Amino acid sequence: MKKYQGFLIDLDGTVYKGTERIEAAISFVKELKKRGLPYLFLTNNSTKHPSEVAKKLRGMDVPAETENVYTTSMATANYLAEHKPKARVYAIGEDGLLSALKEKGFILTDENVDFVVMGLDREITYEKLTIGALAIRNGATFIATNADVALPTERGFLPGSGSLISVLTVTTGVKPQFIGKPEAIIVEQALDVLGTSKEETLMVGDNYDTDILAGIHAGIDSLLVYSGVTTKKHLETVSKKPTYTIDTLADWKLQ
Amino acid sequence: MKKYQGFLIDLDGTVYKGTERIEAAISFVKELKKRGLPYLFLTNNSTKHPSEVAKKLRGMDVPAETENVYTTSMATANYLAEHKPKARVYAIGEDGLLSALKEKGFILTDENVDFVVMGLDREITYEKLTIGALAIRNGATFIATNADVALPTERGFLPGSGSLISVLTVTTGVKPQFIGKPEAIIVEQALDVLGTSKEETLMVGDNYDTDILAGIHAGIDSLLVYSGVTTKKHLETVSKKPTYTIDTLADWKLQ
Repeated sequence: MKKYQGFLIDLDGTVYKGTERIEAAISFVKELKKRGLPYLFLTNNSTKHPSEVAKKLRGMDVPAETENVYTTSMATANYLAEHKPKARVYAIGEDGLLSALKEKGFILTDENVDFVVMGLDREITYEKLTIGALAIRNGATFIATNADVALPTERGFLPGSGSLISVLTVTTGVKPQFIGKPEAIIVEQALDVLGTSKEETLMVGDNYDTDILAGIHAGIDSLLVYSGVTTKKHLETVSKKPTYTIDTLADWKLQ
Repeated sequence: MKKYQGFLIDLDGTVYKGTERIEAAISFVKELKKRGLPYLFLTNNSTKHPSEVAKKLRGMDVPAETENVYTTSMATANYLAEHKPKARVYAIGEDGLLSALKEKGFILTDENVDFVVMGLDREITYEKLTIGALAIRNGATFIATNADVALPTERGFLPGSGSLISVLTVTTGVKPQFIGKPEAIIVEQALDVLGTSKEETLMVGDNYDTDILAGIHAGIDSLLVYSGVTTKKHLETVSKKPTYTIDTLADWKLQ
């Protein structure tokens, strides 16, 4: 086991499950904090501002400030800023996405748009989808925060951003550039924020298809914790394995 | 050229283009009417009641009564009636679909549903998609009026029913049974209404991928008219050809 200097940590299924705390994970984060090891919570939730996410975490006794949170909306805004600062963007999404884009200085508009950016939008309308589809057909670049097809809630699995985004993909024939996990993009953006190198950073998460594959795609080590989505049985079926697997973060010994 | 006793005729691109009449087609329909040859306009438009469609046609001087129109919403309602009369249906769609289901005696509800039925709905909301997704996950059978991915309008190509329906397909992993063209189902339903056999009926349309394939799938002869979507160049690329192709219906000699 290497001595890692930085940690990227998934939230739902890893630190908590819905409104339920995962104690071993919370102790793990507290130990990172105590040792002064930098960590960043990496989430595909595009709808919330990082300050809201941090507030929820503190409410669960997890040491978390706004700057410890990195959302796919922030990664999306940073990705656009690298490609075309001050671009004209038609955004379909909730406050987390819209505020991330505004904070980076993009012009949010539905005319002459350079990028159509889409995330989960629970106020979706046919008119928003129409404007997005027409802009993509007119040549705007199509970017999407994350491909998650389902949103786990107390009501059951609701439509996730990936399923709403499919409307634009199917109607235009254009596939978006996804930014969130399992893409390498969000991990690379997060490493810039965390300030640690690929070699000394560990990606920690419960979901093989998002968290672990994001680590693998970005070329960093990964730790799968069996506290959420991925089961041991499922892991047997995948060809590229995580660097480590563990039943609970209580078993992880920090070097 | 056979002597056909019944005609299934597409609308947009065949009889008119948007608000523009196609004169040769209108003369053709008038000649059918004069000779007493039965015909049925077969449309994948799920949003309108057949009486509205007939009214629009009469406004263009096309001889059309309500009973000459067969929509994919009517085909969907008939299909459900064959499988489970009085079923509990959660419907996502516009008036054409909702009225067709009500007229067939289905119970429109969002609780304990047997079928989720979806067509184009320009008042789509996240809550409708949520109810549909949860019902399908709970075992309701998923039926969709038609797979058209784009809706041609004066603004350009807007999201079609097939693209909205993809939200439920992607989020649940369940593919719907489509009813409209190019499925055989709508053609078989229409033949029952028209009262002619497969051997003596001709499918007439401008779109290879919907109209002509519907005819081919149902095992009836087809006539592609180059007045709309499909070009001669595109037709060269397909393996299963229409029975006949023609530049304009003015060139078609009724036997």
